[in-house]
Amino acid sequence: MTEAGNGEVSNMLKIENVVMTTRIRLARNVKDCPYPNRLADREQARAIVRLVAAELNEVESFRLYYMDVLPDEQISFLRERNLISRDLFEHRRISAVLVSSDESISVMLHEEDHIREQYFMRGLNLKKAYERIAGLDDLISEIIPFSYDETLGYLTACPTNLGTGLRASVMLFLPAIARRDRMRRIAPELARLGLTVRGAFGEGSDNEGDLFQISNEVTLGLSEEEILSLVERAVMTVVEMELMERTRMKEEGGSALTDTVLRSYGILTNCMRIDSREFMLRMSDVKLGVSLGMFEGSMEDLDNLIIAMRPANLNRLNGAPLSAENRDVYRAEYAGRVLRGMKLIDDGRRNALFSGR
Amino acid sequence: MTEAGNGEVSNMLKIENVVMTTRIRLARNVKDCPYPNRLADREQARAIVRLVAAELNEVESFRLYYMDVLPDEQISFLRERNLISRDLFEHRRISAVLVSSDESISVMLHEEDHIREQYFMRGLNLKKAYERIAGLDDLISEIIPFSYDETLGYLTACPTNLGTGLRASVMLFLPAIARRDRMRRIAPELARLGLTVRGAFGEGSDNEGDLFQISNEVTLGLSEEEILSLVERAVMTVVEMELMERTRMKEEGGSALTDTVLRSYGILTNCMRIDSREFMLRMSDVKLGVSLGMFEGSMEDLDNLIIAMRPANLNRLNGAPLSAENRDVYRAEYAGRVLRGMKLIDDGRRNALFSGR
Repeated sequence: MTEAGNGEVSNMLKIENVVMTTRIRLARNVKDCPYPNRLADREQARAIVRLVAAELNEVESFRLYYMDVLPDEQISFLRERNLISRDLFEHRRISAVLVSSDESISVMLHEEDHIREQYFMRGLNLKKAYERIAGLDDLISEIIPFSYDETLGYLTACPTNLGTGLRASVMLFLPAIARRDRMRRIAPELARLGLTVRGAFGEGSDNEGDLFQISNEVTLGLSEEEILSLVERAVMTVVEMELMERTRMKEEGGSALTDTVLRSYGILTNCMRIDSREFMLRMSDVKLGVSLGMFEGSMEDLDNLIIAMRPANLNRLNGAPLSAENRDVYRAEYAGRVLRGMKLIDDGRRNALFSGR
Repeated sequence: MTEAGNGEVSNMLKIENVVMTTRIRLARNVKDCPYPNRLADREQARAIVRLVAAELNEVESFRLYYMDVLPDEQISFLRERNLISRDLFEHRRISAVLVSSDESISVMLHEEDHIREQYFMRGLNLKKAYERIAGLDDLISEIIPFSYDETLGYLTACPTNLGTGLRASVMLFLPAIARRDRMRRIAPELARLGLTVRGAFGEGSDNEGDLFQISNEVTLGLSEEEILSLVERAVMTVVEMELMERTRMKEEGGSALTDTVLRSYGILTNCMRIDSREFMLRMSDVKLGVSLGMFEGSMEDLDNLIIAMRPANLNRLNGAPLSAENRDVYRAEYAGRVLRGMKLIDDGRRNALFSGR
């Protein structure tokens, strides 16, 4: 094996190449109001939506979408961008969502709870993310009396959210852990700490694209700070494991790994059509390539491309709905164009590896 | 489906995109001399070699290789370039080969027969090829008395070559026939006419790279002209079938076919290593792409690249023997560089296909 260059090592050890996004969510309910699944009074539900919308728009610009009138296509679009949850449809008759213009904040109304405040950010900064959403929570609490118990804390529709109502989630890109099948060992360890690991697209989903979400399971009996600190420590441990596994994978798999990455890049930049599933797999290889210093490219741009290539987002990009087949063609064409623009730092590398014979 | 452009149609119907090479071979034996498998007298064998070599070198420059002193690496090199046959090794103690400087002529001495004169050329021109080798045959006949029978014609070691001693072979690139599994129907038809179809690398070989060789089985009872005409007519029929199948494949498989070709091109131009077998498969896709007008490239250049990427030829190119693993790396690197230089006529095509939604 050739020795890795310095630029490559630093790239490999960059936390940005492992931690994708941080999400903080607070669950709140309106005092003396039935939970959404039993909230028959549509006018009462709407009043809450209007109240929250008015309050938030005082501070910054939010778009309000009522679920009952939102076209399916638009629902899929927001869902693919992680701005709304699956559960929000269930109470479609009364539910709504407020989305900030930069899409960093989404406040879901009448999901499982009356109010679910979410903040998303790039990278790992749980404290900053929490402060941002806590500020928003304070604003809402000024106009809406929350359902709160001195002993239990915030009351929620489901007991798993009781207490702080806080869920801190970090999305991690773990190609080495996934490919070396290490998650089976890590997951029970995290569970022991009161944390869960899920695939990228929520509960029950596979680890498509080597993405995993680590979040706290327990919301009760710990302070907000304790939860944040628990998640952060667990994330840092997993990040370190991933970086170690990447180094090992590179040492053991050297040119096979480079080959896999370059083949996926070759297919993505040349193919005529590609479906969602294969696209995710190949993009994961390319992201791995970026993290190994093989390409000049930002993980954020690649993640944005992945989101943009999901079905409803692709339709939006195209300006009109596409058949599944044409979506695969458009995906190949669009992503190919973007990726062809990415600079390969490889020719020297290929020769270097080869001359190492 | 979008309508194929004119340039593409003409490209698709070009016979050069189906017929790769023509080979004419004459089998001759020295009168009153035991056939090579029973030729114990090494000095007698050598005398024949020297005689033929001296005569041919009067006309043009030939390189003479004695098999008994030729290194294995060099034997593989010549074998991969189709200049010598497998059978030539069997009598390695006495056998030799004369190769013209442009490699269009190879005269094998003490293969199955004493003298096997071969001429190779690009494209389909059996008459011209035959005239070329007949001229050479006349030369040799001036100094060597051939084993000839007034009734039977030229006598040969194996009765299948008796009579004219002529084998006319045409190498065809038949990706559509192969992929649509039509060869099983064609082969018996050809057999009925006294013709055989073989894989690219001789008897018993698979159709690696969608290459097939059509040649006459019968050498007795027909004149040279009749044999050439028989092979030519059969070849033209198969060429027409192939072109028809290509059109059909393109109509039915449209973007799937383009996708397959472009993916193979993407892998070839990006991968870090590739073995012989996969290389052949992917190159066949690229050649199909050229024949469909997707790339600007000549079949001849691609065929030369395929030969250059065979193991012994790669070693030669590298200047020193490579391990199997490093050969795969070098192949990927070398072929990738050549193919990246090939002009894709595709961006318009992709958009055209896509806008046909």
